[in-house]
This record gives sequence, structure tokens and C-alpha cells, in this order.
Amino acid sequence: MLLGHNVIGFDLSAEGAELFQVFSTLHGSQLPEQFHIATAEEVNKAIEKAKSAFPVYSKTSFTERAVFLEAIADSILEVGDILLERANQESGLPLARLTGERDRTMNQLRLFASLLREGSWADAVIDTALPDRKPLPRADLRRISQPVGPVAVFAASNFPLAFSTAGGDTASALAAGCPVIVKAHSAHAGTNELVAKAIQAAAKKTGMPDGVFSSLNGEGSTLGQQLAAEPAIKAIGFTGSYRAGMALYATVTQKRKEPIPLYAEMSSINPVVLLPETLAQKVSETATNLAGSITLGVGQFCTNPGLLFTVQCNATDAFIESLAAALNAAAPGTMLNQTICKSYYADRSKTANLKGVQTIVAGNDLSAEYKATPALLKVSAADFITNPALQDEVFGPTSLVVVCADRQELETALQTLHGQLTGSVFGTADEILRYTSVTDILQQKVGRLIFNAVPTGVEVCHAMVHGGPFPATTDARTTSVGTEAIRRFVRPVCYQDCPPALLPVYLRNENEAGIMRKVNGTLTREPIV
Amino acid sequence: MLLGHNVIGFDLSAEGAELFQVFSTLHGSQLPEQFHIATAEEVNKAIEKAKSAFPVYSKTSFTERAVFLEAIADSILEVGDILLERANQESGLPLARLTGERDRTMNQLRLFASLLREGSWADAVIDTALPDRKPLPRADLRRISQPVGPVAVFAASNFPLAFSTAGGDTASALAAGCPVIVKAHSAHAGTNELVAKAIQAAAKKTGMPDGVFSSLNGEGSTLGQQLAAEPAIKAIGFTGSYRAGMALYATVTQKRKEPIPLYAEMSSINPVVLLPETLAQKVSETATNLAGSITLGVGQFCTNPGLLFTVQCNATDAFIESLAAALNAAAPGTMLNQTICKSYYADRSKTANLKGVQTIVAGNDLSAEYKATPALLKVSAADFITNPALQDEVFGPTSLVVVCADRQELETALQTLHGQLTGSVFGTADEILRYTSVTDILQQKVGRLIFNAVPTGVEVCHAMVHGGPFPATTDARTTSVGTEAIRRFVRPVCYQDCPPALLPVYLRNENEAGIMRKVNGTLTREPIV
Repeated sequence: MLLGHNVIGFDLSAEGAELFQVFSTLHGSQLPEQFHIATAEEVNKAIEKAKSAFPVYSKTSFTERAVFLEAIADSILEVGDILLERANQESGLPLARLTGERDRTMNQLRLFASLLREGSWADAVIDTALPDRKPLPRADLRRISQPVGPVAVFAASNFPLAFSTAGGDTASALAAGCPVIVKAHSAHAGTNELVAKAIQAAAKKTGMPDGVFSSLNGEGSTLGQQLAAEPAIKAIGFTGSYRAGMALYATVTQKRKEPIPLYAEMSSINPVVLLPETLAQKVSETATNLAGSITLGVGQFCTNPGLLFTVQCNATDAFIESLAAALNAAAPGTMLNQTICKSYYADRSKTANLKGVQTIVAGNDLSAEYKATPALLKVSAADFITNPALQDEVFGPTSLVVVCADRQELETALQTLHGQLTGSVFGTADEILRYTSVTDILQQKVGRLIFNAVPTGVEVCHAMVHGGPFPATTDARTTSVGTEAIRRFVRPVCYQDCPPALLPVYLRNENEAGIMRKVNGTLTREPIV
Repeated sequence: MLLGHNVIGFDLSAEGAELFQVFSTLHGSQLPEQFHIATAEEVNKAIEKAKSAFPVYSKTSFTERAVFLEAIADSILEVGDILLERANQESGLPLARLTGERDRTMNQLRLFASLLREGSWADAVIDTALPDRKPLPRADLRRISQPVGPVAVFAASNFPLAFSTAGGDTASALAAGCPVIVKAHSAHAGTNELVAKAIQAAAKKTGMPDGVFSSLNGEGSTLGQQLAAEPAIKAIGFTGSYRAGMALYATVTQKRKEPIPLYAEMSSINPVVLLPETLAQKVSETATNLAGSITLGVGQFCTNPGLLFTVQCNATDAFIESLAAALNAAAPGTMLNQTICKSYYADRSKTANLKGVQTIVAGNDLSAEYKATPALLKVSAADFITNPALQDEVFGPTSLVVVCADRQELETALQTLHGQLTGSVFGTADEILRYTSVTDILQQKVGRLIFNAVPTGVEVCHAMVHGGPFPATTDARTTSVGTEAIRRFVRPVCYQDCPPALLPVYLRNENEAGIMRKVNGTLTREPIV
């Protein structure tokens, strides 16, 4: 049952008089449950608990954290179908998609658990003492990754499970040894409450310290700004709009004394380059494939393909026609929330009215029903190159075809691109080898370079990079999906001539956990004898 | 011969009419050679060359870069004793120290070369395709670290060789595959010119692209601000004062659209905790040891021990007396430059005049001779805890003893500490095991935790962390000394279903270089068959 609680460590708290309800775009009305906005005192309580939990939680073994993460996965499953039903009502996402998203959420918790059990992620490095070295002896130096401190996680609207309360940011921060304070997304506050209580139960069950996890409700930007400016917060994970991400960036860099890492995943339009030979050979297949990707999840994915580059050839018109037909045939879909739906039509119109833009497809404005219809726009590369506004993200099922006169113009257009999560190239085997200048340019702009596949579908694995140069993210050095995400929340600490009993166990000679370590420059799992 | 040139890629350039000379604190006069301040056009030319060099240099093999770094080391040695003599005149540092620093500079270039040849640093990760997986197949995903782009390096006054033109920042950025533009330090412009030309010669000799390296002269902050705001610069390495570092931070975060990593190593006072048993047993040894560290290099090290914590015991007074005697006996030393010398006496007075501070030793003000005399100040922990100004760095041979009434007060004092490069604990074996709460607190504050040794002396190796929480640095996730420094200048890129011919060679099935890779979650050097 939903009680509108904030989860503050091991407590449930509803002290605030300010309440809000969630609007369901599926029903076109507010859901009855009321949620308490966290008061300043409640926020401070969560902060104090996270601070107290840190020295304890940061010293838990990797295995203890793995057990905690696995308990969270189990605990989420135990919530049962009520979780999927609530998420469906709050987000408008279909049950089948949410079932898959719940699997993904549990799988990524378990993936981090397996990463922890394996242990090599912590980058243990040992240079043993050289007491007889001339002119100076060398001390014994041992380094390992240590957690940075309490982390604030901002839940994302478009993944109420996998990028929210127990999503990738929370999983990776907890795996790293950092207490987490989640800023719940107000558009799915009920889903948040169910998951937050599941995490709380798992923390109690596995003996984690009070304050290892909290979840707070807030509307607008007040709570987020408060967390971003809070000195005890040592890193932030965020997925959302460019505007909100850059507001956080301004706060982090100007309103706090100590700089901290801000991992904001924001705006990406995911360029897709369609080389001429492949387009000519597979007009209809390519169009169907792209239409599916453009409309998947009603276009509400970070990796939605918003930009399609073609090089003028015989097949271009046929392709555009075929893609237009496929998009016209796609059913309108319910969007996540009112704000996103309103922005979708506004941003789509804005782009459609820019110089040189031709509207090929634009379904009716169904914002009264909170539904999005797809759109296809077209512009010449000459216009694209000179107008950066054509790179503004339209969050939803709209894509812009950029028609390039020739390869040279394609390369110039790609050079003007802002940073992106992904870039895709469709081409025949021969063609791709002839267009290496194109893939070279694209590689400089993206976190993930894709060959002959659409950008939607982000595998949670070791090699994934879901990140990229600005404005895709504020920090291109990392990824928010996959095991590498754990590195966002650690810093290296070196121990010099440290007594074995005080060393982190992973740095002791015995290497009981058998992790991969770099010992005197050589990677090995062997103990030091 | 010194011609006052800027080194711009493969060109030497002296277009500016603005000239400056270097003041030698050793001679107490200006050295005759004149240096041309880079004009805006020359800066732009260096930027354009770095941009052009990047696509070529970023694709060089690790081995090619290793050959380049080794050629730089050889080339620096070939400059001969003139380099040491010039550095001596410009910095006032003794020839013996500079000879060691040149060795260190060459050794760190060679260490990065060996890291490159070994190859595992690049974090190659491969998840192979699972075409038959249900419900969805998995694509082939391969990730590796790629260089971020052109890097600006700010030379440091206190290491004219090892942290300057061809120092650790330059070596690690070049190793990562990034072109470098050095902002020469105006206090050792001649040393810079000799080294910059040596790097230029090495780049030509080993077939590197024009623009892989430039070095520009500037006085004051104009050039640095210009580089920090320049869109083409993708990361910055800086070692210097808190004030200068934070000015760069303001520019990077507020004057440029795209956030970039700023690695500023700034202010650290390197607390040393002296536990009572060890102090009682080794009064004179500890005092001699610390006096040596405080006065080493005339106190002009980032890791100079500026703060000594004692717990009131019988030995405290004897220790302070012994340390005072050792410092009084130390000869005054020539400081690096006029600004540093002026600041030293000003900052020392400022601290000495703060509430509760007692001056134990304060040698005469020898600023007319550009020499520093050591000082020893003392304050109660009660005063220290309530006054953050007592944590302001005094750059030079001055240390402040903080006398704690008991263990509780020691812990409270340590809790108030700002972030530090290092923290040291001196204690007997038994004592250290009883004081784990102290080392736990200290570990949260530092990049390197040291047992029974002074903080000066930073080993260049794999396990070193020369970094730490703010204000020691602006980014605690890294180190500026040791091989891990290379990670500052890369970002991960993922290749999805990439044809083998387009994959970076280190990600191809064959694993020709035999590097350690994570393949489907397992670390291995085996090829994929």
C-alpha cells in the first residue's frame, strides 16, 4: 500500500504538509495517492544518516555488498505485480515493457554483484619495497579504489525502474561502497515508494548500516538543487533533460566550494549515417528498421535516432518515401507525462519551422490525449551545417533527414555535430571500408559507434559505453550503463608501508580473494611470497 | 642557444613584440636572454596544429608512442649540462637536485613507454555476440580507452623539469594519444625552451605529426585563461597555487560551453600525526627526520609536512624543543622565484598572527636575498579546530604543531581537515593497531596514507597516488604522478558490430599485442577463436 512516505535510512517519514499526486497520462487524470514532499529537516536527516553510514558501509567487503545487491533484486521481485501495475499507470509504459525493465533492473543489480565477487574491478596495484635500491630505497606502495562518499541519484522519467530508484546509478554507487540518496521522480512517485521500501528491507535483512539508502520526494527543482549544493554529497548521477542537467552543473560548479563529479546524461540525437550502396540495396528494410527504432517506446529513449544522414543518390527519395509510409502507419503512443508530451509537440514545431526544413510526415497533435504521433522532417546538409538549432533534441518519435549532396558535404556535416551517446553507420562491407574518414569523424563525437544497427537497445554488459562527449553528458570519461559505471564513484587511495592488518584485504600479500592485481608492473592473481 | 622562441609544432616562432626576462634568485638579477610572449595568432596557430595533429596522433599505435616518448628522454639528455645549468640559474635549485630531477623526468617518460608497450592500461573489454540469445540477440560490443583530444599543460615552478615542459602531465597526455600545448612557466622560460626544442626534435625524428607538441610563453594569467577557454582543448593538467588553480576552475566551468576535465593539483599541508609512544621512544630521531622533510627543497614541495599533530604527553615538549633546534640549525635556502619568496614570509606571518598561535622558531626575513629561513609554529587543537585559516598553505619551510589534549581531540581535529595529498602517521606497531579510528579518518582525507615516514619523496611507480580530495586537487579520481596518470586523458569508446579492419588493433580477435583484456567477463591475454 502506498502511504506517500519518504524513505530515510531505516525510517519511513511523512512530516511535510506539502503533498502531491501523480498524473496518469494513461487515464488522463490524477491518481488518488498522495505523496509527502520531503521537508528540509527530512533532507538533512537523510544526509546525516548517509554521512554516518559511510564509514561503516565503505568498509564492507565486496562480498557483503554483493549479497546486499542480490537481496535488493530479490526484494524488488517480491513486491510482485503491483509494482508493474503502478509503473504502468504512472508512466503509461506497457506492462510487457515494464516486465522486461524489471528483469533488466534485477539483472544489472546481479551483474554488479558478480563484478564485486570477482573483485578485479577495484584496480589493486602493488609496488613492493626495495630497501636496497640506490640512491634511495623504495617504500612499499599499494593502491586500491575506495568509495568517494554519499552519492545523490536523480531518477529518470523514461525508465521508472532501470534508471530510477534501484537503477544503474544506484546499483553502481552501492557497489562502489557509497551510500545513496535518491531524488524520486515525481512522475512515478508510487513506483519509487515501492522500490525504495524494497531496498530498505534488503538493507535491514543483510545487516547494512542505517542510512546506506534513502529516497526523498520533491517537485520542481528545489530538492535537486539542495542535494547538489550539499557538502556531504560527493558525486551525482543524473539522467534527464539538457536544461535540468545544466542547472545541476551550474549549482555544482558555482554554489559549492568543493568540486564533485557530476555524471549528467542529457541530450543526444544519435546520428545515423546511411551510405548509398546499402540504401539502394535495402530501401524498404532500412526504412522499416529505422521506423521501429524511431517509434520504440514512443521515441522516449536517450538513444532514439533523431538524425538520419543520406548522401544524395537514386535511392534517397524512395527511402524517405518508404520511411514516411512506415511512420504514418505507426500507432500514436501514450507519453510518459504531461511535460514531456507538451515539450514534444512544441520542440517538433520549433524544428519544423527552422530555415529549410521540410515536413514529410507530421501526425496530428494528440496532446489532449497525451499521445505522440511520429514525424519526419527533412533538410539539406547546407542548411544543417549552418544552423546548430537543428541539433536541439526533440524528445519523442521525430527524426530529421539531412540530405548531403556528396561525401564531402556529409563529412562537413558530421564535423559540425555536437557530442552524442551513439553514432550509427549503415553500409555494405565494401562501402564501410571505403568510408573510414566518415567513421573516424563519427568516433570522435560518440560514446558508442554502431555498424549496421539502430542505436536503441542498450546492452547491460562489461563493454557497454552509455556516455559520450558534451552535451550527451557532462563527463565523457565514463558510462552510466554496464559494469564500468562503478568507476564513477571511486577514487584511488595509496597506502605506504601500511601494516598488513590495516590494509584493505584485497591489498594484502595473501590475495585471499584471488583478484587480478598489478604487482611490480605485472598483472597477476598470485599471492606475494 | 636561447632565442626566446615559442615552439609551435615543427616551427619556431617569435612574432610578438612583448618580451620578458627571467629573474634569477640565485644571482639576484635578471638573466640577459629575452623571451617572446606568444601573440594571439601564435596561440591560435598552436591550437590549429594540435587539432590537425589529433586525428593522426590518436591513431598511432602504442608502440609508436612509446618510441616517441623514449626519443624525448634521449633528446633531453642530449641537451647536455647546459640544461641543468640554466635550470639552476632560473630556479635556484642546486645542480645535484636538478640532475636527479632530470633522471626522474627521463625515467617517467620511459615508464610510460613501457606501460604503452605492455598495453593493458587501455582497458580493452570485449563482449562477443550472442546471436541465438532469447528474447533478443546480443551484438558484438568492444570497448577501449581513446584519447580525449588536445591537452593544455601548465608547467610548475617547483619542478622545472619533472612537472613542467616534458614532465608527468605532458608524458601521460602524449602516452594517452593527446597532442599537448604547454604553457611555459615564465620563471624558467629558458629551461622550457631547451626542453621544448628537444621534444620538437624527437617528434620530427620519430615521424609524429606537426602539432603533436607546442610550447608557448606568457606572463601573468592571460595565456592560461585563453587556453582554458579554448573549445579545442579537451583537458587540462595543472600544478600550482590554490589561487591560480581556482581561477582556472572558474574559467573552465563558467567561460566555456563544454565542460572538460581540469586536473589542478593545488594546496596541501600534509598532516603528520605523531602518536605518543613512538614520540616518547624516538624524540630526537623523529625531530631530525621531520626537520629534514620540512626544509627539503627549501620547503617547496607539494608534499611538504605543514601540520604536525601531537597528543599531549611527556615527550611533546622535548620533541618540539628538539625539532626547533634542528630547524634553527638549518641553513637558509634560495627560493624558486621572487613571488614565492614574498608570499612565503607574508603567509608565514599571517599564520603566526592568528589566534592562539605561538612562534617557536622564526628565522630572519631574508627576502632581500630571496632566501627562506625555517619556522615552527604551535597552536592548541582547540584553536585549530575552530579556525580554518590555520589550514591555509604556507609554501616553504614552515610547519605548525597542533597540540591535542587527548585522542578525542586529535580525532576531532583530523575530522576538520580539508582534503590533502598525503597524511602520515608515526606510531609503534602496537600503537597503530590501537589507533585505527585515527587512520580511518585520515584515509578519508588523503590520496596517500603513509606509515612511519615523511610525506616528501613521491615515487614514480604504478601504485602511486599523487592526488586527493579538494583543495589538494580539483579531481580526486586521479593522480598526477605514476602510470595511473594516463587515465586522465582518455575516455571509453564502444564499437558495436564493427568490422575487424576498422577496430583498433587491440580489440581484434587475434590480440596480437597480447594485452590483458576482459572477454565476456573474464580477464585474459588469449586471442578469441
